Amino acid sequence: MKNKINEMNETNESSIGVVYGRNPVLELLKSDKRTINKITISKTAVGSVISEILKLARDRAIAIHYVPSQKLDKISPYSQGIAAEVSAMEYIEIDSLIKMSKENPKPLIVLLDCISDPRNLGAIIRNCAAFGADGIIIPKWRASGVNETASKTSAGAIEYVSISRVSNLNNAIDLLKKEGFWIAGAETGGQNLTTLDLPFPLAVIIGSEGEGLRKIVKENCDYIISIPQKNEISSLNASCAAAIILYEISKHR
Amino acid sequence: MKNKINEMNETNESSIGVVYGRNPVLELLKSDKRTINKITISKTAVGSVISEILKLARDRAIAIHYVPSQKLDKISPYSQGIAAEVSAMEYIEIDSLIKMSKENPKPLIVLLDCISDPRNLGAIIRNCAAFGADGIIIPKWRASGVNETASKTSAGAIEYVSISRVSNLNNAIDLLKKEGFWIAGAETGGQNLTTLDLPFPLAVIIGSEGEGLRKIVKENCDYIISIPQKNEISSLNASCAAAIILYEISKHR
Repeated sequence: MKNKINEMNETNESSIGVVYGRNPVLELLKSDKRTINKITISKTAVGSVISEILKLARDRAIAIHYVPSQKLDKISPYSQGIAAEVSAMEYIEIDSLIKMSKENPKPLIVLLDCISDPRNLGAIIRNCAAFGADGIIIPKWRASGVNETASKTSAGAIEYVSISRVSNLNNAIDLLKKEGFWIAGAETGGQNLTTLDLPFPLAVIIGSEGEGLRKIVKENCDYIISIPQKNEISSLNASCAAAIILYEISKHR
Repeated sequence: MKNKINEMNETNESSIGVVYGRNPVLELLKSDKRTINKITISKTAVGSVISEILKLARDRAIAIHYVPSQKLDKISPYSQGIAAEVSAMEYIEIDSLIKMSKENPKPLIVLLDCISDPRNLGAIIRNCAAFGADGIIIPKWRASGVNETASKTSAGAIEYVSISRVSNLNNAIDLLKKEGFWIAGAETGGQNLTTLDLPFPLAVIIGSEGEGLRKIVKENCDYIISIPQKNEISSLNASCAAAIILYEISKHR
């Protein structure tokens, strides 16, 4: 099996070609958004999720290859005895993302300002799926793309969230403003997230793990929102902060 | 530098002896809870955090050893050019944890039912510090202890949260009940977290990444609480779920 992952791809075409793990493969089949070329499965893999995968795969006439379990373990430590070779995940164009979001009466887009840890990216994708955000915009540089780790951490949620990748986040913010979006950046010292009634269409920006929002991004925000903490000695992990923000905003949607 | 980490320690004595990374070392110095034997620092390390660390260390007459940067990189990829050798972090006895929590008019303890990923454990410790939970109880078996990865992911929050490690989580729940605590387990299909007014003293149980709460733990709960999602196709990462639950509960404290 050829691994087609190409993290630093310059175009918007592909970021992943093989999906590993039981739940990620099941979600892939359920969402039915991408062409699955074949499924490779360990001869010793059993269980209810595997059975469900096999049933769905047979229904769609997807080729199933059985291999010794060592073979999959060798290819990826995350395989859990199963892998699906898929048509590459496509980042979508920002214009399409904005247009699509406007089908929702209260559009919500999440921008990530240089999240470098793919585990945080994956967990944020999962948050976005759970709270129904319309899409994510990530920068091409100094940030994690949707690689294998991000895909795995998203636990299948990647199949339900549209992601756009842009060269310049500030240009993306300007475009969103032109399209009527309000821009809210998450950072300490801002307005209280709990009591603030944010307007829609809304774009929320989550800053990086270490640095928060870049100065130029922060200056471009209409609102700075903060999560009220009991204790300011400790900050929150980026994906945990995103979870709380999306949870709170989803109450108003 | 001898690495004293001993994850599977049977006693409650130690779980970590070396703290790596700029912010973790700074928090260690600021909290002033543990004896720091010495600080090892890369000859090339500079920046405002390093300056602050050096100032605090000199104020307390802590030995500072300068080494070539490769030496620290070799010991840990997480060092960021700095490491502090400390007296071992001590898990505290559950009785002490409960007693201490009761100094708070609305005691809140977090139990983790077999969280195996140390990154999730670290992020949850960070959430507990941010929202002022009184302590954490983790099981000794089939769960991550406070190892180097957890400590690093907690970004220094480990210095502010008391952690108890128990052989049997259900015995811990029984003890908490005897001490007047209400037990709320987080799982799908329960009461809506947003509208539920939970009583104190309160113990919240977060389930493991893949399995959720174990059946026997779930049966021991007074409440099953759920985070309302827009989209049930995707679940939340354990640390993100914990962040939302602690954020919501902190509104009532």
